[in-house]
Amino acid sequence: MSIVNVIWHKVPDTDSIISALVFAEYLVKSWVEAKAFRLWELNNETRFIFDNVWADVPELSTGFEASSKIALVDHNEKSQTVDNIDELDLEYIVDHHKIWALSTSKPIFVRFENIGSTNTLLYKMYSEASFEISKTNAILMISAIISDTLLFRSPTTTSEDVKAIEELNKIALIDDLEWYALKMFNAKSDLWDISVGDLIKLDYKEFDVWNFKIWAGTIETTNPDYSLNRKTEIVSKMQEIKSENRLDIIILSVVDILNEKNITIISDEHDEKIVKDVFWVASSDNLADLWARISRKKQIIPQLTEYYNKL
Amino acid sequence: MSIVNVIWHKVPDTDSIISALVFAEYLVKSWVEAKAFRLWELNNETRFIFDNVWADVPELSTGFEASSKIALVDHNEKSQTVDNIDELDLEYIVDHHKIWALSTSKPIFVRFENIGSTNTLLYKMYSEASFEISKTNAILMISAIISDTLLFRSPTTTSEDVKAIEELNKIALIDDLEWYALKMFNAKSDLWDISVGDLIKLDYKEFDVWNFKIWAGTIETTNPDYSLNRKTEIVSKMQEIKSENRLDIIILSVVDILNEKNITIISDEHDEKIVKDVFWVASSDNLADLWARISRKKQIIPQLTEYYNKL
Repeated sequence: MSIVNVIWHKVPDTDSIISALVFAEYLVKSWVEAKAFRLWELNNETRFIFDNVWADVPELSTGFEASSKIALVDHNEKSQTVDNIDELDLEYIVDHHKIWALSTSKPIFVRFENIGSTNTLLYKMYSEASFEISKTNAILMISAIISDTLLFRSPTTTSEDVKAIEELNKIALIDDLEWYALKMFNAKSDLWDISVGDLIKLDYKEFDVWNFKIWAGTIETTNPDYSLNRKTEIVSKMQEIKSENRLDIIILSVVDILNEKNITIISDEHDEKIVKDVFWVASSDNLADLWARISRKKQIIPQLTEYYNKL
Repeated sequence: MSIVNVIWHKVPDTDSIISALVFAEYLVKSWVEAKAFRLWELNNETRFIFDNVWADVPELSTGFEASSKIALVDHNEKSQTVDNIDELDLEYIVDHHKIWALSTSKPIFVRFENIGSTNTLLYKMYSEASFEISKTNAILMISAIISDTLLFRSPTTTSEDVKAIEELNKIALIDDLEWYALKMFNAKSDLWDISVGDLIKLDYKEFDVWNFKIWAGTIETTNPDYSLNRKTEIVSKMQEIKSENRLDIIILSVVDILNEKNITIISDEHDEKIVKDVFWVASSDNLADLWARISRKKQIIPQLTEYYNKL
């Protein structure tokens, strides 16, 4: 039997990388040969977490041959996964995002739940199967849930996420979760050596609604001014990315984690009009104040999807 | 909070009807208001099972208003569900079929597994949640798993289906499963008062592969001769259905449950050629011998899907 390659989306965040590791181990515990692969470099938050527990970072994938078995974690959309996905043998999906144009030629294993973090779902799957969770994995899974829910600040948070962290911390034994979360957020906010191009691509979702191409980037940070001060450079780079990728809209939300505020950078008048139509806020000087709209998954993407769905 | 309407596909078989009942009860036990609805009349097998345990058949739905909450069980494809699905608020899917063109504008609850019966998955979900299963429901769920796996004769059967029946029978206490299954199969085979049109539509799946429309009907029976003897009438009705529904292909497999054989009725030369290309069997007199290919889900639909995918 050939191995299942467990992969996360092209732009890896903490939840997705840890999902891949933890789900690969789940498959192995279920007697399915599996291995997690890295498609890209880690961001500073994820690197901090892995360094903290001395965990090995998964190998970089050099691509998958046609007919390789694949598991997708923390994503399901074609625009977010490996380019040759149609040639691969998709066998598993574990995710907590909306679903877009998902098709398979045979029945597969799929789990989606409307919860804050893929790792909360994986925690449930481990519990259901009575699989043991190591201390390292418990710390990693807690970190992932903290990262995706901003330690329960995000409106995507459910009681299941809270319960998962509680239960996992019986193994992980992290004394002060607020303090640990702040260390993670500060690591994530450490962007001084990053180019403007990389800053925009740090955490973005590109998705299609019919023929429309939408790019929604996020910078979750404890120091929003750092990014906002680079606005002029950022706007011109966003315009470049927009035309290169033939996007219909590109937005970049600078999310102040601790104060739960979203200031979104917009690169042209066309996009300003759409942001006004969708979110009912005027923008000025390429900035729109989206208030407490800090969850892209729940408060940005569904609204944009519905807007383009109706066009 | 509005109620979740739990529905099965347009052409209800035993597994799907019982899935709807059992999943609606699962939601209620999870403190979600829910109700199972019937979209069509029961077939003779399902009626036998419900009569046997004196269970109430779900109410007939008269359609769902826009924005009603919906749960799909035992199916996910648009061509198989209520016509106004795009206006409804899809919240749950529990299924064991391939996935086709599934899109949502928000994260939802989804469970798919590659197993013989949706009720096996529901049994697992009840176990995971430690929900009690009544004796009536245990008998219904066993009946559903028997129906979909032909009591383990179908190649879709997994060890999970076998285990689910074993565990459920600790509650149901059915003495002789083979004898009970034979009673079910005989009830299903009792087709003497059915018109040719209804015979073809007894258990069919219509599905799209891109712009191709495919119709795959099945008659699972202990008495294949009864249907095969009406071949001439059937072929002419199939031609009518094919042109009315602008189908690219229509096939009707007569599956001899006890001898595990599939004789498939084909209505014209165009379809004969495709059946030959896909399954490598010649047909004569509108009949193709598909040997032990008794599972539509595993041995017919994936092959047709791949064929049309490559066109």
